[in-house]
Amino acid sequence: MPYEFKLTRHVDFVDTDMAGIMHYSNFFRFMEATEAAFFRSLGLSIYPRNLDGSIGWPRVHAECDYKRPLRFEDQVETHLLVRQRKEKSIVYGFIFHKINETPIQQVARGVLVTACVTRDKATGEMTAVPIPLSIAALIEAAPEELFLPE
Amino acid sequence: MPYEFKLTRHVDFVDTDMAGIMHYSNFFRFMEATEAAFFRSLGLSIYPRNLDGSIGWPRVHAECDYKRPLRFEDQVETHLLVRQRKEKSIVYGFIFHKINETPIQQVARGVLVTACVTRDKATGEMTAVPIPLSIAALIEAAPEELFLPE
Amino acid sequence: MPYEFKLTRHVDFVDTDMAGIMHYSNFFRFMEATEAAFFRSLGLSIYPRNLDGSIGWPRVHAECDYKRPLRFEDQVETHLLVRQRKEKSIVYGFIFHKINETPIQQVARGVLVTACVTRDKATGEMTAVPIPLSIAALIEAAPEELFLPE
Amino acid sequence: MPYEFKLTRHVDFVDTDMAGIMHYSNFFRFMEATEAAFFRSLGLSIYPRNLDGSIGWPRVHAECDYKRPLRFEDQVETHLLVRQRKEKSIVYGFIFHKINETPIQQVARGVLVTACVTRDKATGEMTAVPIPLSIAALIEAAPEELFLPE
Repeated sequence: MPYEFKLTRHVDFVDTDMAGIMHYSNFFRFMEATEAAFFRSLGLSIYPRNLDGSIGWPRVHAECDYKRPLRFEDQVETHLLVRQRKEKSIVYGFIFHKINETPIQQVARGVLVTACVTRDKATGEMTAVPIPLSIAALIEAAPEELFLPE
Repeated sequence: MPYEFKLTRHVDFVDTDMAGIMHYSNFFRFMEATEAAFFRSLGLSIYPRNLDGSIGWPRVHAECDYKRPLRFEDQVETHLLVRQRKEKSIVYGFIFHKINETPIQQVARGVLVTACVTRDKATGEMTAVPIPLSIAALIEAAPEELFLPE
Repeated sequence: MPYEFKLTRHVDFVDTDMAGIMHYSNFFRFMEATEAAFFRSLGLSIYPRNLDGSIGWPRVHAECDYKRPLRFEDQVETHLLVRQRKEKSIVYGFIFHKINETPIQQVARGVLVTACVTRDKATGEMTAVPIPLSIAALIEAAPEELFLPE
Repeated sequence: MPYEFKLTRHVDFVDTDMAGIMHYSNFFRFMEATEAAFFRSLGLSIYPRNLDGSIGWPRVHAECDYKRPLRFEDQVETHLLVRQRKEKSIVYGFIFHKINETPIQQVARGVLVTACVTRDKATGEMTAVPIPLSIAALIEAAPEELFLPE
């Protein structure tokens, strides 16, 4: 059963800051883009447009450890690994590699914890619900050894 | 009747790029923040949360002329001026000044054209509609001479 | 001689706003990403890291006309066309198509005018300079008929 | 000696996503804006423009716990508290409150760990260095009880 996905992207000019490196907040954009691509790889959408937005995946926790900077036009592989698939939430781990230079180096590691929620149409209020079986059945936790440090 | 608003803001670190200046796309963020503040100054919201999002203001045109760069922690005054209040759209002009140095200098000029629309709840499709009187009655076009070039 | 480039990208979740569509400022990100990819296709970099940043391309004008909204996971083709290659600046036109639905539709058109500058290392001040021959010799204006309206 | 700072800001339209709430990555922008304002309150700049950028503060860790969503035009108070001032790094804690509704509610908590570095002018490589005394002397850790949970 699927538990990982790899997405490769350039660092765009707009992603950089005056320190000449990718702004740290953009690692969270890369995590999210990889999560969405993981869902697409399963034939799903992280925010399906025909389901009335009935299920959503707000974040309850996000974190990132930065080891090496990324610069403009660096090629970055974001490796998503499912750490835990709980009843009402998913814990993802992310490992970032800069792949346009040898040796390929790990540049960062991240975590996203997302809750499965429904949204009240009138108030917009969100309530945590069990992950639908049609989704839960497609995802499992990755083997622990894939997270070995660099 | 109101036709202008001034909003002052810092350039944040994240607004800069590796060229050491504010990324050009952020001028459009400043325009939008000033438009929202202009509406608040009229007792309105550009996207009222209790009206079911029944009225929206998507952009049909946006432009900016850049004269001088902005840097981190520069203090920027964004001056919104209503250029035209048409039946179903509003044309805004914007003049940006850097106000943390003497002489105060004009750094950019911008334009936003926004359409007044309703959104179909089922399909999300947008249809241009006349600006509600409760809003149109509060806004008029600014005197032309306020747009004199620098 | 090259005068165009096409880049295809998804709309990311973070690109959307509460109106459910791609925020208008992100079209400028797509233009810039396509400009950078165009330069790479010529064996160049829009911001070469080994040249001391001696040449830069700040924008002097940017604009966009929005015709149809883009939504999350729409596939967008950004078509860059060189409109003019002047002595010290380049004028680019951009045509955006949503290509994940039939019929393929034009969603927006944009313009970027970029100046070729050098930067004073001490003060950071920018001075317009002629486009280096090594770059100018690789770029020409696209045939006018490619800009025919939709 | 100073150990805290509070910055209040609106949620801008561009900060929202199609789920109708502030995109989670923007909490990191708010943290950073508050860190910069904290430095300014000490007569410092987080990225001084006259010092040749000799000192920088890249992040080595960032995290955020999300408790309640923020919506467009919510007024947010970001409360920065220095958790630790180490020899070569600073650990900040952040507590976010939505202050435009009663009762005022805590919406999120964050952490930033920043390293004090110098940058090699030729290669751009960064090396951790002791925090300059002129800065270290101005900052101390906040009392632990200020971090009591909600």
